[in-house]
Amino acid sequence: MTADGGRVVALCGGVGGAKLALGLSRILAPRRLTIAVNTGDDFSHFGLPICPDLDTLMYTLGQVSNPVQGWGREGESWNVFETLGQLGGETWFQLGDRDLAVHLQRRALLDSGLSLSEVTANLCRRFGILHPVVPMSDERVSTVIETGDGDLPFQHYFVREQCRPVVTGYRFEGVDSARPSPGLLAALGDDDLAGILICPSNPFVSVSPILALPGVREGIRAARVPVVAVSPIVGGKAIKGPAAKMFSELGLPVNNQGVADFYGDLLHTLVVDQGDRDETLRARCRVHYCNTVMASLDDRIALARHCVALLGIAVPEDR
Amino acid sequence: MTADGGRVVALCGGVGGAKLALGLSRILAPRRLTIAVNTGDDFSHFGLPICPDLDTLMYTLGQVSNPVQGWGREGESWNVFETLGQLGGETWFQLGDRDLAVHLQRRALLDSGLSLSEVTANLCRRFGILHPVVPMSDERVSTVIETGDGDLPFQHYFVREQCRPVVTGYRFEGVDSARPSPGLLAALGDDDLAGILICPSNPFVSVSPILALPGVREGIRAARVPVVAVSPIVGGKAIKGPAAKMFSELGLPVNNQGVADFYGDLLHTLVVDQGDRDETLRARCRVHYCNTVMASLDDRIALARHCVALLGIAVPEDR
Repeated sequence: MTADGGRVVALCGGVGGAKLALGLSRILAPRRLTIAVNTGDDFSHFGLPICPDLDTLMYTLGQVSNPVQGWGREGESWNVFETLGQLGGETWFQLGDRDLAVHLQRRALLDSGLSLSEVTANLCRRFGILHPVVPMSDERVSTVIETGDGDLPFQHYFVREQCRPVVTGYRFEGVDSARPSPGLLAALGDDDLAGILICPSNPFVSVSPILALPGVREGIRAARVPVVAVSPIVGGKAIKGPAAKMFSELGLPVNNQGVADFYGDLLHTLVVDQGDRDETLRARCRVHYCNTVMASLDDRIALARHCVALLGIAVPEDR
Repeated sequence: MTADGGRVVALCGGVGGAKLALGLSRILAPRRLTIAVNTGDDFSHFGLPICPDLDTLMYTLGQVSNPVQGWGREGESWNVFETLGQLGGETWFQLGDRDLAVHLQRRALLDSGLSLSEVTANLCRRFGILHPVVPMSDERVSTVIETGDGDLPFQHYFVREQCRPVVTGYRFEGVDSARPSPGLLAALGDDDLAGILICPSNPFVSVSPILALPGVREGIRAARVPVVAVSPIVGGKAIKGPAAKMFSELGLPVNNQGVADFYGDLLHTLVVDQGDRDETLRARCRVHYCNTVMASLDDRIALARHCVALLGIAVPEDR
């Protein structure tokens, strides 16, 4: 670890992860943070490569995200999809005009032979993002949600079916033969690696795909650095998304115990919202209580400071 | 031929062809007209299937075309491509937001397993078009322009390079193994077929690809019906596009003689603009003079009436 504190690898899904990543980006220099993003939700739609979590990260860090909607870009227009609807096209997965431009350019850059990592770096540069954002893998891993009604590709479950079907299981197709992206591998193997931060994203479908990639769990253990996770469950609910419903349907307690049990002995510290102090929690790891609800940018920065401190890294107060 | 006059097959490129097709659609019932459209200009861009001539036909007949621009839709917005430009994407082939919706839907419908003919029929229905518009083929035929600077895909020559390179030849890749579309084949084989009309489109790159499809020239000859072509050259120039420049660069006279020579004994009648009456023209076919410059809808209908009369078909005056 260098004098200035070493590097943090943040494992990240969409909205909740992006909020914490934004906080981290305000207190850690670009060389000290690698944001590794779930791509299990990615899918091809109208022939375009849609990467919902990468886009949420990019729009959040690039300060063009739509905070009310929770996805997509602010000041967006919908002319393409309005017309598509008139043509009888599928509009269950709404893509704004400016959002679409990103997918067109991703298609063009991938078709030119660049990897998803290279494409992501290219796009992030255009959004003025200095911190490295890397996909978990350059290869296709597809999260499939197993439900009473049959298997559903993740976005069909999440967006088209609005998470209504009862989840009986999930799997990550292609994960066994996929490699972690060069950026994630390099960060995990970095001599300067100081800690791993698991963002408050859905453990099943946002964090697990990253951990399921061959070599990632092993790389985390081999690095012998602290692993801190922020629980996405607050007051028995998920701030956003189907995490709570999935805990329940998969037979796990819908509380921080469920999160602690899920990550098991991977964690050194679980960060739990201060409102849940009274919850009985038997964890094999340390538990740290603080505010984890990130309503404002200050909340995001404050939570990032807690996490970085728990990783044992000094952060200059004036950053 | 039925009592009401039989069917016309119009072979059609983009703008000029679409204008005459619009005129024809105003005087012939849907069952009496099949518009067979060049697809040699088609290409894949950002993973989307772009069919410039089919789109021009569809937008013209659907009354949503942009008459000033000569391509695309009226009342168009450009939010996607504006953003794409900011992302460093390729913007030499401009696609408006509402135009893009058509390409997205075409991609989705093709991916669902429909043929280009079926997709075109589906889209045309959405634009309220009653007359059958059929692609020349459901298989990929790609016009390549041979130039002093090397081979160029048609749209690269036409749009990106603005027709600047000197043309030394052209070819239609894939044409030898492509089949005419079911709609074109059925129309050519229809017992009710009354005549073939070659629209005032570029002979080399709009009409020739259709004629080059295996079976099309043979089908036209076997039908033993009149073939009428409207010359796209007026006053030694093309109304639009690179036809005149290509005649010159390919060593053909840039006048109606060049057009007559090009189509040779395929034609029964060449329709020439009345302003070119004084041009010396030795054609193996009949020559008919009238106004061929279609500035207004009335011009389009009037030229369509001339053509249909030359095919020997009665048109009720009150249509």
